[in-house]
Order: sequence, then structure tokens, then C-alpha cells
Amino acid sequence: MKLDLLNTLRTQNPLVVNVANFITAVDVANGLNAIGASPIMTESDLETEQMAEIANSICLNMGAFTQPQIKEIRDLGRFANAMEKPVVFDPVAVGALKIRTHVAKEFFHQFNPTIIRGNAGEIAALADIDWSSRGIDAGSGTGDLNKIAQACSKKYECVVILSGKWDYITDGSQTTIVKNGTELFQLHVGSGDMLSSLAAAFAAIEPNYYEAAQSASLIFAAIGQIVASKMQQAAPASFGVKLIDAMHLTTVEQIQEVADYEQIG
Amino acid sequence: MKLDLLNTLRTQNPLVVNVANFITAVDVANGLNAIGASPIMTESDLETEQMAEIANSICLNMGAFTQPQIKEIRDLGRFANAMEKPVVFDPVAVGALKIRTHVAKEFFHQFNPTIIRGNAGEIAALADIDWSSRGIDAGSGTGDLNKIAQACSKKYECVVILSGKWDYITDGSQTTIVKNGTELFQLHVGSGDMLSSLAAAFAAIEPNYYEAAQSASLIFAAIGQIVASKMQQAAPASFGVKLIDAMHLTTVEQIQEVADYEQIG
Amino acid sequence: MKLDLLNTLRTQNPLVVNVANFITAVDVANGLNAIGASPIMTESDLETEQMAEIANSICLNMGAFTQPQIKEIRDLGRFANAMEKPVVFDPVAVGALKIRTHVAKEFFHQFNPTIIRGNAGEIAALADIDWSSRGIDAGSGTGDLNKIAQACSKKYECVVILSGKWDYITDGSQTTIVKNGTELFQLHVGSGDMLSSLAAAFAAIEPNYYEAAQSASLIFAAIGQIVASKMQQAAPASFGVKLIDAMHLTTVEQIQEVADYEQIG
Repeated sequence: MKLDLLNTLRTQNPLVVNVANFITAVDVANGLNAIGASPIMTESDLETEQMAEIANSICLNMGAFTQPQIKEIRDLGRFANAMEKPVVFDPVAVGALKIRTHVAKEFFHQFNPTIIRGNAGEIAALADIDWSSRGIDAGSGTGDLNKIAQACSKKYECVVILSGKWDYITDGSQTTIVKNGTELFQLHVGSGDMLSSLAAAFAAIEPNYYEAAQSASLIFAAIGQIVASKMQQAAPASFGVKLIDAMHLTTVEQIQEVADYEQIG
Repeated sequence: MKLDLLNTLRTQNPLVVNVANFITAVDVANGLNAIGASPIMTESDLETEQMAEIANSICLNMGAFTQPQIKEIRDLGRFANAMEKPVVFDPVAVGALKIRTHVAKEFFHQFNPTIIRGNAGEIAALADIDWSSRGIDAGSGTGDLNKIAQACSKKYECVVILSGKWDYITDGSQTTIVKNGTELFQLHVGSGDMLSSLAAAFAAIEPNYYEAAQSASLIFAAIGQIVASKMQQAAPASFGVKLIDAMHLTTVEQIQEVADYEQIG
Repeated sequence: MKLDLLNTLRTQNPLVVNVANFITAVDVANGLNAIGASPIMTESDLETEQMAEIANSICLNMGAFTQPQIKEIRDLGRFANAMEKPVVFDPVAVGALKIRTHVAKEFFHQFNPTIIRGNAGEIAALADIDWSSRGIDAGSGTGDLNKIAQACSKKYECVVILSGKWDYITDGSQTTIVKNGTELFQLHVGSGDMLSSLAAAFAAIEPNYYEAAQSASLIFAAIGQIVASKMQQAAPASFGVKLIDAMHLTTVEQIQEVADYEQIG
């Protein structure tokens, strides 16, 4: 676990190009900015190649699911592969909505994601594992989350972050379980989108994408936990504000003090 | 006035599908999430029927007024009627912009709304009552707000929430006036959009839509009033943060303590 | 420097029509609302002329760069000229993305902006001056910022606000340098978009657009500085909340106390 990647990020200030979910785009942009990356959002197929060229990494979020964005995700993914730039894919609401499952799987015939970040229901659907899910929530199915994450990773030959109460980060053979976090993440819309964009930011500065993904997950989860531990009430909007503040202010040392994770086979 | 519907909402966690105004979508999603519903936003005509299927209720906001959203509002409204799911309509800027008045009235040839929520200018325009309005504000015309709300309700055979300093909720024969609130609602963009989405959330759990609408209005207005009463200054962005916090934390008992409403003929 | 334009704004409450960047639209709308203007956002080519008719001023932000918005910017700009209403243009990411530079220059064959507001990289690109820039940041090139602003102003015959650590406001012959501000503006996504919309709000109430632009710049920079001076840490999201609060609460007298600017050549 290379937590000092956070310092590298703050020094290198990588440019992360995002196809963003309109709903959470302002939080994603402010979060990237606060932690030390440089965000740019794109919604236009007029500038896809130029966006890929200036990017240090790319985050493709299918939350909005508009036709122009579907086209842009496919094209940016292909450019990312051709230019050998890391590309994170966020399969928002896959599983809950069949058409999204279909479209997401089609994407993977067009480009190879570097990292996929989703909740249990989304990752299970991509891995063709039966899992009940509903909307943006992780659903209440049962199953071995590590097996789901590894199956998805092996199927698409990429790193997978299955996020939830604990995060499972795997490259298909080894898995890190990040046990930091807070229930307030679930009360704040866009926490998952933010984690996906952070995974892209860390992949821009760390060529070992498994390292990048687990560091991004632990750093985000630990910052959320630190913020929540100082709050007296479960106040979701105040949490959202303090979370972005803390993404700017929290040090590697403060994260190391609370870091709680486990490496498994 | 069934204020304990708030507890039912928090237990049942209904899924509210929103065609959202891009500007305020993040507040609407966080607000629904905070109060205990499960929000999902849709902007794509690729998944209209599936969205209708998973919804417990639907909120159609015409604030963005893009061509894809106009199509989606019409189609989701028709599916909602066919599937007998409650559907709230928010006629943003109707009256102020003639084309929107025209399009909104056309919608009602395609589907029947369960609840319409708008300000005085918007509701008057739908009811063909002359009322000067401008932009997102209620305008400064005169008239009997209850008459306007009842005329709109009778014309479209649905529950109407005419919101403003006081809210008028009517089913065409009886009206509840909710007198709670705070001037800070007007300083915070998206307050009306949030109330519309809450009306949808309550309609998902209470088949008497007049009850659902008046409970949503009173609960939202009372929470805003409680938040404002604790603030020393008229600080609009801080109010927005505290409002969403309070949507999560406020109890039925706290609302009952301040509830101020009147039933009229 | 007519700082009491702030009081005029709060009395006249001008309606500012915005083609907004989706990412920051909620902050732009809340900021305009807080300071005393009345915001309306438009994303639909169905209502372009009606939007122009009800507007007291117009702010065209090319941040989203979608095809419908490009069409709408062009058409609203032409209506604004024809109706003699002030129109502010914000060339987001021009220079960094060649296609945007091309499209922005094409706009100026279609309509004449009243005020252009951008960072050094964007203004330099419009003025055909070589300047390295990247993404949403001002870049790190060298050069005389006043010369860049004046060259852009002379080329397009309009007022230019070149914003950054200091803001340079020029009509092509005279320049005001606003030295107020805080580094927190750079940490908060959307600060530039907010300044552009404020320039439009002030242009709606002050026919001398050079006066309007410099007053908007100084008032916004001074409010940010006052907010930052009361914060103990560089907390970007808290700054964003307090900034909008302060746009509502700060008085002309408080701004006069910290106002720091210089008139040059």
C-alpha cells in the first residue's frame, strides 16, 4: 500500500478527463481539484481526441447515459487504449437496468478498461453473477464479494474496485480489502463517482494500477472515516462539504494512523 | 395531516425516478437520499420503460427543457399512467416562457399528473388565469391563491401544490394552507424542485395523494423553518447544507411542535 | 470604481439568462441569487428568442461545449446584439483545446460580446498571443497580462476581464488591476464561471460596461478575500459555501474597507 502516492499526486497534479454524471459532476470536479489533481469534464463529441491527448488519465462514468455520452465513452475509451493512457470505467446502475448492462458489456468489445469501480450489484452484473440490486444502491443479495470482484477482474482482465462498507480491490489473483470508511458515504450522493475519479487520478501517477486502485480506495475511505469521526451527527450535506475540505487538508501521516486493510490470496 | 408518513418513508425507502433540472439535480438527489427515499435520475430515452418499471413514483421536472427531456417526460408520464404509478409534474418557468406553457399543456393530453407542484405564476398559467410572472420567481400579480390552485386542480383533475410564502395544497374541493417556511427557501435555488421530488416520495407510500402532498409540503416547510430559526444570518448556501442535513435528522415530533396549517373549504 | 452598484443590483434585481456549464451551474445560479440578481439557465433551442426577450443581460459560457449549447450560444448572442442587451462570453478551455479556440472565434463573426471574461491562457488564445495553457488552469506562460488583455479587447472591440491572482479589466485603452482575491478561488471549481455571470449582472444595471466589469471583479474578489481572511485553513468546499453566503451578506462598506486596485494607462 503506497500511501505516499498522495504526495506524488499533489506534486504532479495530473489532468483527469471525465465523462461525468451530470448529477455529481460538481462534487467530482471539486474533489479532484481539492486532492491535488486537475479535473476537466467533457460532454461533447467534437473534442474527444483532443481530450484524450491532453489527459493523463480518463474516467468514464455512465451515470447520465445520454446518447452523446454513450458515444463519447466508447470513443474516449478507444483513444485511451490507443494512446496507452489509463481509463477507469464506472458502470452506474448496471444490473438494476438491463439496457445499461447490455451497453456496458458492448463497451468492453470496443476498449479495455484499466480499472472498473462499482458497487456489488454493478460488478456482479458485469461478471454475470446473479445479484439482486436496485437503483444506485448495492442491493441486498448474498455472495462472496471477493469472488465477485475477482470474477469481474478475470473476465475483463483489469483491476476491479468493488466498493461498499468495505472495498475489495483485486487484479484477479490478489485482493486487498479496505476496511476504512463511514456510513455517511452512503448518505452522500456521488461518493462512488468520486472514488472512480480518484482511481483515475492515482492511475495517472502510478503505472501499477493495482497499487493505484488500492491506494485511491484506502485514502478516500480513510479521509471519509476521519471526517465522520469528528462529526456529532449523521449530517449528510455537511459531510459532503467537510469531505472535500479534508481531501485537500489530510496528510499521508493522518491516513497512516487509521489505515485498516488486509491482503488476501 | 399524517406527519408520521415521514417514518413510513424512512422505513420503506421508495425509489423515486426523476427527470431532473440539471441545475438543481444534485440537491434533489441528496435531499431525497437524506430524507429516506432512494433517488435515481434519468436523462436518456434508451431506458424510459425500465425506469418506469423500477420506480415507486416519478417526478417530472421541466426545468432543463431540452428536447430529449421533453420526449422523456411525455413517455415516462404515459408509462406511469399505464403502470398506475404516481407522477408529479413541476412546470418550471411556465407562464414566464410561452413555449413552456404550450408544451406543458400538451403533456396533459398525453398523461394525467397525480400532483402538480409550482409557484403561483406557474399554476396560474396552467389554469389559464392571468398572473404576471417572471423567471423562476412567483411574480407579483394579485389574486386569490386558493382559487388559482383549485382552478388548476379541477382543470387537470389532480392534486395541486401552489408553493410560496405559504403553500396551498388542494384536490379541487378541499385545501390545506401550510404556513410554515422561511424566506431562505427563496434565496436557495432548487427549493421548489426539492419539494416536487418530496411530493413524489410521499405519493409512493401514501395512496391518498392529497394526504401525501400536504404532508410533504408541511414536513419540508417545517424543516426549513426549524433550520432557519437556528441561523443568526440569512446565509443561503449554509441554509442549503443545513436543510439537507435536517431532512435526515429531523423527527416527526420536532415537526409536530412547529406545524402550522389550516384546512379550508 | 462604482462599488455602490452592488446596492443598485440588489434593488433592481436584474434577470440574467445563462447558457451554463453543467458542472458549475448550481453555484452560478445560487451566486447570482445570493448577490441580488435573478438567474435563469437555458439549455434548449426551443426558447432562445423568448429567453433573450425576458433577459436584462446574458451570460454565455462555453464550458459544456455540447452541440445544442454551441447553437444556443450563437443564437442568443445574435438576439442579444439585435435587442441591444449586454452579453458576456466565457471562453472556457479555449487555448487548451484547439477546437474550442476555433469555435469561439467563429462566434465573434456571429455576434459582438459586450464583455469577455477568461483566464490568461484563454484571453491570450483569443488574442492570437502564444501562451501555454492546460485545461481549466491559467497555465504558466510569461508575458505582460495587461498587454494580453488589451490586445484581446482591441481585437474584439469589447471589455475584457483577464482574471487570475490579480484581475485585469480593460476597454482597450485604460486598465484597472484588481488586487483583491484569495488563493482559495483556484481551489473552488466554478469561481471563474461565477465571475462571468456577475459581470453580466452588473452590465444589466450599468451601461458603462467597463465600470460594470471592474465593479463586478472587485466586488467578487473582495468578498472572496474577506471570506478567506476569516478561515483558519484552506478548506475549498467550506469556502464555496461561505462565498455564496457572503455574496448575500457583504455590504458596500465592508468591500470599500479592503478594496485594492490600480488604474493604469
